[in-house]
Amino acid sequence: MVRSFATRVDASTHKVEYPDIQDTCKRIGAAPTTTKSDGTPLYTLPMIYDPNTGIALSDSFLIAEYLDKTYPDTPRVIPPRTRALQAAFIVALESKLGALFQFLMPKATWALNKASEAHFRKEGLEMKAEAEFGAINTLLTKEDEFVMGDTLSFADFALGAILVTSKVLLGEDSEEWKRIANWHEGRWGKLSQSLEKYAKV
Amino acid sequence: MVRSFATRVDASTHKVEYPDIQDTCKRIGAAPTTTKSDGTPLYTLPMIYDPNTGIALSDSFLIAEYLDKTYPDTPRVIPPRTRALQAAFIVALESKLGALFQFLMPKATWALNKASEAHFRKEGLEMKAEAEFGAINTLLTKEDEFVMGDTLSFADFALGAILVTSKVLLGEDSEEWKRIANWHEGRWGKLSQSLEKYAKV
Repeated sequence: MVRSFATRVDASTHKVEYPDIQDTCKRIGAAPTTTKSDGTPLYTLPMIYDPNTGIALSDSFLIAEYLDKTYPDTPRVIPPRTRALQAAFIVALESKLGALFQFLMPKATWALNKASEAHFRKEGLEMKAEAEFGAINTLLTKEDEFVMGDTLSFADFALGAILVTSKVLLGEDSEEWKRIANWHEGRWGKLSQSLEKYAKV
Repeated sequence: MVRSFATRVDASTHKVEYPDIQDTCKRIGAAPTTTKSDGTPLYTLPMIYDPNTGIALSDSFLIAEYLDKTYPDTPRVIPPRTRALQAAFIVALESKLGALFQFLMPKATWALNKASEAHFRKEGLEMKAEAEFGAINTLLTKEDEFVMGDTLSFADFALGAILVTSKVLLGEDSEEWKRIANWHEGRWGKLSQSLEKYAKV
């Protein structure tokens, strides 16, 4: 029952602790989005339950599609004819940002254990992450704020989710986040700020 | 001086043999598109020379952008606001189709040497390539012919170039190409057929 990004549809957001995700999804009827390495189903957030239709749904892209279709009078996040391209943008982010995820992982995993965090942090990942963001930057047009110019779309939310996660994990006042925010003429700092109003963290 | 895909702009196509690519690009003034593993510049085709403007350009995406901008009355291949998404689609293809490229490589490298071809071909790559095309297939909408529905765009030409290359390297009448053409309800065979009229092979 997480609805972080959509606007202008009445919704309430519920936080679900990790150990409770699977049971909550099963109870409400949201399908697993992928499988674990052992082959068993993996249930993930976000998921929604729509009392107007009785539909429960997981996977942020499928949720976005559903909301666009079910509530056509609210802002669309997948503009007409761009579904496949939006989905490809997510694949591009995943394929290009591997070092960033490695860079953030110790912060996520060892958030409560500072000594271990330093131990697990690998050298050089920040520099690699900067090069990765450089690859994303070359996809984008310099003067455009959003992926589709002045039109906000799912691709921005996907990128924004990564940026906001980075900011939260590294800490808004950390030197690391400040450096990321300034890479590529401050694009990532500006974008995360523009998108922050849609994120409930 | 290769103009394979654009339509309705007067153009002539010239074939350039591999050993002549670098000198031809340098002579006409087209920049290298990437660097070799030893750090020296790599010149690639396609490239164009436009006698109307005196501009020489390489990299198919930059060429498409240039032609869209310079000849606005001809069909656009990068629809408005989709530049970054189109570029991301290329990244997605490259990141997802690694086994396909490995599968095709012996055909390209050893085309004149059948004994070596068999020696260099790895087991299981066709099955992996099928799974990779499956990943691309999930990006696309089932009933749509093209990436943007009924609108032909750069993304289709990128995918089409890979399909036509596969067909040419494997042979149109080969069992391997026939199998690929039939994967995912015949999507790849149909798409390569629709796009073939734009390809000069």
